Amino acid sequence: MVVLGPGDDAAVVRAADGRVVASTDLLVDGVHFKRDWSSAADVGVKAAAQNLVDVAAMGAVPTAVLVALVCPLDLPVTWAEEFTAAFDGECDLVGAVLVGGDVSRGPTLTLAVTALGDLQGRPPVTRSGAEPGDVVALTGRLGWSAAGLAVLSRGFRSPAQVVAAHRRPAPPYAEGPVAARCGAHAMCDVSDGLVQDLGHIARASAVQIRLETARLEVSSRLQDVGRALNVDPLRWLLTGGEDHALVATFGSASDVPAGWTVIGRVREGEGVLVDGAPYPHAGWDAFGTGTSRT
Amino acid sequence: MVVLGPGDDAAVVRAADGRVVASTDLLVDGVHFKRDWSSAADVGVKAAAQNLVDVAAMGAVPTAVLVALVCPLDLPVTWAEEFTAAFDGECDLVGAVLVGGDVSRGPTLTLAVTALGDLQGRPPVTRSGAEPGDVVALTGRLGWSAAGLAVLSRGFRSPAQVVAAHRRPAPPYAEGPVAARCGAHAMCDVSDGLVQDLGHIARASAVQIRLETARLEVSSRLQDVGRALNVDPLRWLLTGGEDHALVATFGSASDVPAGWTVIGRVREGEGVLVDGAPYPHAGWDAFGTGTSRT
Repeated sequence: MVVLGPGDDAAVVRAADGRVVASTDLLVDGVHFKRDWSSAADVGVKAAAQNLVDVAAMGAVPTAVLVALVCPLDLPVTWAEEFTAAFDGECDLVGAVLVGGDVSRGPTLTLAVTALGDLQGRPPVTRSGAEPGDVVALTGRLGWSAAGLAVLSRGFRSPAQVVAAHRRPAPPYAEGPVAARCGAHAMCDVSDGLVQDLGHIARASAVQIRLETARLEVSSRLQDVGRALNVDPLRWLLTGGEDHALVATFGSASDVPAGWTVIGRVREGEGVLVDGAPYPHAGWDAFGTGTSRT
Repeated sequence: MVVLGPGDDAAVVRAADGRVVASTDLLVDGVHFKRDWSSAADVGVKAAAQNLVDVAAMGAVPTAVLVALVCPLDLPVTWAEEFTAAFDGECDLVGAVLVGGDVSRGPTLTLAVTALGDLQGRPPVTRSGAEPGDVVALTGRLGWSAAGLAVLSRGFRSPAQVVAAHRRPAPPYAEGPVAARCGAHAMCDVSDGLVQDLGHIARASAVQIRLETARLEVSSRLQDVGRALNVDPLRWLLTGGEDHALVATFGSASDVPAGWTVIGRVREGEGVLVDGAPYPHAGWDAFGTGTSRT
């Protein structure tokens, strides 16, 4: 897919479809990650994942990425090397190639990643296509990253599985194009929290979404962590961001691909109802900073 | 050219050529600009210009841009508004559209801009196509930004023309596609300094470039500033970055478009000779930080 890679004024990437999908996201040290809690490789996975999944959430296949990296002078060279190896490894999972970027010194470690993608001839699956009567379906891990962050925030480092989920999201990239092929009406990734991200679809589509929590599976692992921390784990599923699950609406249950779970319905109206009522809690805000991701 | 603009997980941009040109550049407060010396509008112009010209330097027409902005909490809202207006205005000059981006809080004002472009069916003009026998030609302002920075660095604010040139580059965007249509063999924009950027072409093409300074016009304005600051203004032309002039090689002088000036020749060999000798001075480093732009 790469006509011309890094080293020139710009890269050239094939766009056989005649359109290109493009998304840019930031990761700022202390805002989106903490170097105390996440290794260079963790940040590399996260930086790639959050952008690649934005492309997948349009129903597209990621093709290329560009990385802008601001490095403090005291950043160990090994940090940048480990970051790059993990970043490349995550891109390899979907067949995307690093084609360019920029590096600068600066006081705060900052990453701006741009991902490009190929719609393979299909229309993009936007947030605005949901219709009354649609079913709402989900695929991918939900609440794990928030549970992991809750563990880390209280000074623990285990259970390893939820901590790892916070450090390294594992989005279901391939399911984006699968959903598009199955005729998904609307789609986005869960980066701000399920209720909040369904709210984005509801607003963009001018519909109401009714979520049924009985349909959300709360794994025994999250139940254990919830008991240990005295938190209802359902809250992590409803408000936790950064797992980058995919949520989409389909015209009927028979359109929903294998591996997706129906979790609700689209109706006329507005907003999101959780088990029939508005949900009072705010969305995802990893370090309580007032930052929200789109 | 825009199929889907901001507000979804990703944008969708037309790429009728079947390929897309993509470039990312950083601007970090205190590294690439100083807010004392450059207004929000100045930074907006500069952020757009340095990326749009990277696309033009491939011989492509810029189509779309994405912006990632890290804002300190104390950044006035008016700064972001003025930045955006000026950024949009510069994009308008070339018909490029802001299609997406990301905003985060963070301690250091940082901009990462990605520009996309359309090759209109032509091959990209890379740095590696120069051939022995080519002529080297230049278009656009050279040395003005460095002169303006020299003025500002000594505490002056005039002459206004060179200070403005430092604050707001005015790259000859349209000349990139013009050079490509005229059959340019190699091209890049002058962002690190003429000698250094010609060195990039010489290295990538495995040739030697011989620059003749008698062919470089030193405007009377730069001569005046040079006298006032006791600096040979030719040095600004040879080592000053950030004007974003375009330099290209062509198979013969008759291929060189109107508005371009022949400034040297390509020979077998390596490196860059200035009037027959190696040039001892380093390239551009705006604030003496050891940062170089590609």
